[in-house]
Amino acid sequence: MNPDITRERENATFDVEKLTHILDGGIEKTKRRREIESLVISDPDFQSEDLNFLSRSERYDAAVKKSAQMILKLREYGISDPEEIYCYKSCVHRGRSEPLDLHLGMFLPTLLNQASPEQMETFFIPAWNLEIIGTYAQTEMGHGTHLRGLETTATYDPATQEFVMNSPTITSIKWWPGGLGKTSNYAIVLAQLHTQGKCHGLQAFIVPLRSMNTHIPLPGVVVGDIGPKFGFDEVDNGYLKLENVRIPRDHMLMKYAKVEADGTYVKPPSAKLTYGTMVFIRSMIVGEAAHALAKSCTIAIRYSSVRHQSEIRPGEPEPQIMDYQTQQYKLFPLLATAYAYKFVGQYMNQVYHRITGDISQGDFSELPELHALSAGLKAFTTWTASAGIEVCRMACGGHGYSRCSALPDIYVNFVPTCTYEGENTVMMLQTARFLIKSYRQASAGHQLSGIVSYLNESERSLQPQSVSSRPTVVNVNDLASLVDAYKLRAAKLVELAAKSIQQELQKRVSQEDAWNNSAIDLVRASDAHCHYVVVKLFAAKLGEIGDTGVHSVLSTLALLYALQGIQQHSGDFLQTGLLSVPQLSQVSQRLKELLAQLRPNAVALVDAFDYRDEMLNSVLGRYDGNVYEHMFEWARRSPLNKTEVHESYHKYLKPLQAKL
Amino acid sequence: MNPDITRERENATFDVEKLTHILDGGIEKTKRRREIESLVISDPDFQSEDLNFLSRSERYDAAVKKSAQMILKLREYGISDPEEIYCYKSCVHRGRSEPLDLHLGMFLPTLLNQASPEQMETFFIPAWNLEIIGTYAQTEMGHGTHLRGLETTATYDPATQEFVMNSPTITSIKWWPGGLGKTSNYAIVLAQLHTQGKCHGLQAFIVPLRSMNTHIPLPGVVVGDIGPKFGFDEVDNGYLKLENVRIPRDHMLMKYAKVEADGTYVKPPSAKLTYGTMVFIRSMIVGEAAHALAKSCTIAIRYSSVRHQSEIRPGEPEPQIMDYQTQQYKLFPLLATAYAYKFVGQYMNQVYHRITGDISQGDFSELPELHALSAGLKAFTTWTASAGIEVCRMACGGHGYSRCSALPDIYVNFVPTCTYEGENTVMMLQTARFLIKSYRQASAGHQLSGIVSYLNESERSLQPQSVSSRPTVVNVNDLASLVDAYKLRAAKLVELAAKSIQQELQKRVSQEDAWNNSAIDLVRASDAHCHYVVVKLFAAKLGEIGDTGVHSVLSTLALLYALQGIQQHSGDFLQTGLLSVPQLSQVSQRLKELLAQLRPNAVALVDAFDYRDEMLNSVLGRYDGNVYEHMFEWARRSPLNKTEVHESYHKYLKPLQAKL
Repeated sequence: MNPDITRERENATFDVEKLTHILDGGIEKTKRRREIESLVISDPDFQSEDLNFLSRSERYDAAVKKSAQMILKLREYGISDPEEIYCYKSCVHRGRSEPLDLHLGMFLPTLLNQASPEQMETFFIPAWNLEIIGTYAQTEMGHGTHLRGLETTATYDPATQEFVMNSPTITSIKWWPGGLGKTSNYAIVLAQLHTQGKCHGLQAFIVPLRSMNTHIPLPGVVVGDIGPKFGFDEVDNGYLKLENVRIPRDHMLMKYAKVEADGTYVKPPSAKLTYGTMVFIRSMIVGEAAHALAKSCTIAIRYSSVRHQSEIRPGEPEPQIMDYQTQQYKLFPLLATAYAYKFVGQYMNQVYHRITGDISQGDFSELPELHALSAGLKAFTTWTASAGIEVCRMACGGHGYSRCSALPDIYVNFVPTCTYEGENTVMMLQTARFLIKSYRQASAGHQLSGIVSYLNESERSLQPQSVSSRPTVVNVNDLASLVDAYKLRAAKLVELAAKSIQQELQKRVSQEDAWNNSAIDLVRASDAHCHYVVVKLFAAKLGEIGDTGVHSVLSTLALLYALQGIQQHSGDFLQTGLLSVPQLSQVSQRLKELLAQLRPNAVALVDAFDYRDEMLNSVLGRYDGNVYEHMFEWARRSPLNKTEVHESYHKYLKPLQAKL
Repeated sequence: MNPDITRERENATFDVEKLTHILDGGIEKTKRRREIESLVISDPDFQSEDLNFLSRSERYDAAVKKSAQMILKLREYGISDPEEIYCYKSCVHRGRSEPLDLHLGMFLPTLLNQASPEQMETFFIPAWNLEIIGTYAQTEMGHGTHLRGLETTATYDPATQEFVMNSPTITSIKWWPGGLGKTSNYAIVLAQLHTQGKCHGLQAFIVPLRSMNTHIPLPGVVVGDIGPKFGFDEVDNGYLKLENVRIPRDHMLMKYAKVEADGTYVKPPSAKLTYGTMVFIRSMIVGEAAHALAKSCTIAIRYSSVRHQSEIRPGEPEPQIMDYQTQQYKLFPLLATAYAYKFVGQYMNQVYHRITGDISQGDFSELPELHALSAGLKAFTTWTASAGIEVCRMACGGHGYSRCSALPDIYVNFVPTCTYEGENTVMMLQTARFLIKSYRQASAGHQLSGIVSYLNESERSLQPQSVSSRPTVVNVNDLASLVDAYKLRAAKLVELAAKSIQQELQKRVSQEDAWNNSAIDLVRASDAHCHYVVVKLFAAKLGEIGDTGVHSVLSTLALLYALQGIQQHSGDFLQTGLLSVPQLSQVSQRLKELLAQLRPNAVALVDAFDYRDEMLNSVLGRYDGNVYEHMFEWARRSPLNKTEVHESYHKYLKPLQAKL
């Protein structure tokens, strides 16, 4: 054990294990998680060469191998709880995406939710047994966010009782679905349904892609891998071009909408049913943001405790780089953010499960709010986490660029969350739509409930004259007071956005153009709303924590989180009169004090995330802090070192020397 | 040609070609650059498969091949001007780093600058003819920024008149030098010189690493590749462990410092001589920042003009995504930044060449200021450009993640500039040191010259009482007024940082601890200083431009750049009383107007950067805008598509299906 990191652990003021239980959601959950991790880590079938040393095709190959074994072992161990499957799967693939992700996460669930009983009979067991390996083909080359724009067609032919599936244009080629390129032999394809001469919009169709025996693509199916990406080497994201592919009528998913034998279209009873899945996935992504940032902080903070560099005081030994104020200022607010997002993720999960109960009983009343919240928080957390991972990486200096640090991998695997499942700016504007609607309701005298109820207060207290004359009451040492400040900032920025729309309308532009011409303000309002929610939830979490030591350190983190946000957005707080200039200086001063206060607990706080070395897979983030010897050992295994002399010497350099 | 992008070009209000000449530095330079580009692009020896489809070892192999050919062709064509060599090399390697970079950029120049005439005789011609392929080994595994901390030793043995080179610890292993792993057979090694029982600090030694005949490492030399990184696949960054490697006395570079036969150490006449190279490289990096951002903007803006998505007005066709205000707000300020950095790069280059003349005549007076400026601007521009590349990438939605967009490559190849040649935070603190020193001189009544002379003004005009009572005079439509506001902000933040140090000293902490405890404020002050310099140089450039159309569009860009910076840092401008709350609303409003105003010129402005498709190498950024068909064509060539059925199907999936 590196003596620096040992000393850090000795200096901690709280019980790390207790904090781990809080993060896991209870001592039992910690125990079970560790059991599953041990199961995978000790399994010789899941050992493999470092993925960084493999080509893309080899990485894909290794991932398919692991996924196949995983399916067998899950059955062998009888792991069937979705959360436990997720945990096992994350361990096997070390948090990376894998070729069967969409089969497990989209194909099977879509069958469960949208297949008729007869379709379940036909497809579910073969899919469960991986005879059918499926994916979910929605996005097209020219169409992402805007589902109505999808061009793939399914035209019903009553003569044969078949749908004729087509990709009529180059932009209509399905593009991006995971597992589509090489792994899947089936896909659920989203296509515009045409029957009896009319288009009935998007429907889902089960389309066989490859021979069940030979895996060779079927006639009319042009399918393949979309090529290398920024990360995601293990996944065969694919393309699919359909050329008059005929599928039987019963291959349209018919639990809700139907096409009868003669081609008559029968509408589904409600359009809200698919809403829930999106909310669920976006809530999960908030948890992923916490996870990615927590891993990055673990690596950067442990490394900062063992790395010595430069000098603070001349003549003394080189200090740990964590002693530099600038290093603390880079890392500790991100550590606080990781904790904040962990708690937001827990909250989203709870709310989702509560509301799911309501939905199954036909009560959709809370869904719009949750939908808006999950959209905005998905964008808010993934943007800050992505940028934060890179800050952590660069805080490790040169070694952060080595793949042995794991940080490049964490970044490329996480950053796509900013784009998939709803592009972030679009998500922010969806949240804004809800906020503006709520603001208008409040202005019209309606009493709002839920998380936007502050817009009622603001309607009363935030009149222009009152803003500027209101005394600044923020207490920079009191978290409740800061939560209030964030709330008023959000209220004010929602109001500003609404007013911008109003001003645009007065210029006689259309409602839609007024919206677009105010989009910068709308995104800013959503951002402030989400920030308020995060600070509020962090503060609320503190109320649940009994242990004094843990409570104390988390309170410091929460205060740091809130104050750093104020410093970063000081313009907003000054502009809205929520903070005075002298108070802003207090904020800066207090922030520095909090950094110093957190310093002794920094390593313990990342230890509490409880990432085993095998899961973190980072030489810089090793628990024992013995970084350098392992970095050397790792480098020597690099493929370029397999021979002492690379063949390019004989091929190019030696002949060149002869010529010059 | 895609009709959307044709229409964009038709709508431009200025002469693109004229702007290209300004960017290149004159019509003749544009012409010569294009000649060199054509030379490379039409050369069949430089055609190769898409690097994205190759393994790392194959990419290294391809790079060595091209570099070898490049050396031959440069001689064949008689290209010898350093700028032209740089241009040719960039074309050959499409802006990527390559295995001979350090041979050409560090080994040969170091010989030229630091070798004695006898050493030149021995080493230069073999190195010029690539018999000797050299690198520059400075950084060690445990030591980067802090050169005094380097541990490698060179101990003089007068008995044999040799130096004994050693890597005494694991942390002393040389780590990162480009070309060290497999390519080089020599290195200039930085090591602590020990002679006659005393350490005389760092000296440079010429160390043979590999046999000149077989390329096999020599006895005592442990050398290899450090393994895969975030990008830089073409470069064999290496490690080097020296175990009692003996080199003759005349292998220490002896133009300045010397060790005599008996071991007597002779000091060099001046320590400032190596200063210049650092300044030069950092100035070059500012140009690279402009370049990377310009390429990213070209891709994102062209793609935004041909990509259609969602709807602004219901019922109308999907709009070009560049019509969304949020998209404009992401991209146009970055476009303005790219232009700003182009002009800053030109300025730095001019200043460097001017000062180099002075230095060669023994006049070092301007060097400290240039050193401070180049350090800060290197950090300022690389941070913003790195983040900006990612914004451009994400503004392309899903396809920005595909390697065919080129954006992932631009990012991973550029982002290391934040770390190498001086870690950015360290750079900012170096600039801060100069600013604080200048501030103290001004406070003591000295008249400052050069770029920091504003600290004299501030000393007079920025007394606490005058700040708060000073009328806000900023005119948000007048660039000169905005330059002034940036200047006063910088002055105020330098003052705040100086006061923070003062306050710390009053707590009786040491000077060094006071500095560290104020580091956040110091970085902030440097940042504001650099921002001021950039705005000022952009405004100054406008004065040189005669063409009305070009002048008009660049003025809009400059105003956008200045106003967006104010909006982003509105807290600073409010806090220092330079802007009032109503003015801030004016800034927001004006920004939106400028976005709309730039919209018709956006494509023309990126066209003016004049990147040929072969150089940009981006499907999304194609000049003709025909994105989708070429994306499909690219994907089909992906290695995973070489066979219809990937071997993993037969190895894992089929056997699994049999078991379930």
